[in-house]
Amino acid sequence: MNREEALLIVKKQITEHRYIHTIGVMETAIILARRYGEDERKAETAAIFHDYAKFRKKQEMKNIIIRENMASDLLLFDTELWHAPVGAYLVEHEVGIKDLDILNAIKYHTSGRVTMTLLEKIIYLADYIEPGRHFPGVDEVRDVAESDLDLAVIMALRNTISFLMIKKQPIYPDTFLTYNDMVKQYRQEKGGKN
Amino acid sequence: MNREEALLIVKKQITEHRYIHTIGVMETAIILARRYGEDERKAETAAIFHDYAKFRKKQEMKNIIIRENMASDLLLFDTELWHAPVGAYLVEHEVGIKDLDILNAIKYHTSGRVTMTLLEKIIYLADYIEPGRHFPGVDEVRDVAESDLDLAVIMALRNTISFLMIKKQPIYPDTFLTYNDMVKQYRQEKGGKN
Repeated sequence: MNREEALLIVKKQITEHRYIHTIGVMETAIILARRYGEDERKAETAAIFHDYAKFRKKQEMKNIIIRENMASDLLLFDTELWHAPVGAYLVEHEVGIKDLDILNAIKYHTSGRVTMTLLEKIIYLADYIEPGRHFPGVDEVRDVAESDLDLAVIMALRNTISFLMIKKQPIYPDTFLTYNDMVKQYRQEKGGKN
Repeated sequence: MNREEALLIVKKQITEHRYIHTIGVMETAIILARRYGEDERKAETAAIFHDYAKFRKKQEMKNIIIRENMASDLLLFDTELWHAPVGAYLVEHEVGIKDLDILNAIKYHTSGRVTMTLLEKIIYLADYIEPGRHFPGVDEVRDVAESDLDLAVIMALRNTISFLMIKKQPIYPDTFLTYNDMVKQYRQEKGGKN
């Protein structure tokens, strides 16, 4: 499947606004892949399909989470989290993509996970900094993403957690655990005290 | 043991600066206890002893954490967390205080815990807002503490987590779980969506 075919499939699943966002994520993910040595085609495909399930009905997503034995704590947190693991499932079963690296990058693009792969970090970050995003702090993360992928991911996680806390929202445990995992690794690599 | 005897015991354990902080916590905890219907004597005693172990040597605290089978993940996080559970232990075994409510308020005054008691919330918050504290956001928490204890605790937890994230520090899981627990309860009680 080439880029145009992939985009055509996704375009039918999402709104125009979300499609423009998807193009932004795709272009950003390719740049990041080139910069940090990831497979550009995988980054492109994961980015194109990352929001595939964004506009599925909540009941359909809930059914899939339960039927497919996905992490049941998803149901206790914001429904906004659901489209990522459900999307990975649907992209595999409806679109036929079997590459586990790509599917995991879709699956974890909203929550993150402990020991994220390079591709997962790229999609997570591209989703956060693509040119259509305009929230406080995003420019600082864009700057850091030029030279330090891990720090940029940490900053995106931090901003996301802070934003949710300001709204008095609970934080999905995987997001918090991802932050801790990334920070601990980062401090070790940079020789800081743990 | 009356207030003067308790203060005399603590004064020998901590610095002058920390003693002044302790007086501030004590006075604040008594006000909060009166306001929210907690036993004022328990609040006073827990506050007086909350930093009892603050200046013990790290090696001594580490030995106690291991020997007494305290939560071993304490050793993976900032040593700043250690004085709270170690303090509860020493206050019991050196000072002879056996009241579990008081000991738990000391034990959890830095990390918080899921399903905090009223006394635990009061000591946690008093430690955060006592008059000697001057950090960004503390006045807002002081204002809220006049009328909404739970929201004030949530804000203190939020500010603490944000402050640690700005410094790229890992967050002790209990602190994060306490935030989630408090927010979920708060939203349920206030009729907000979960």
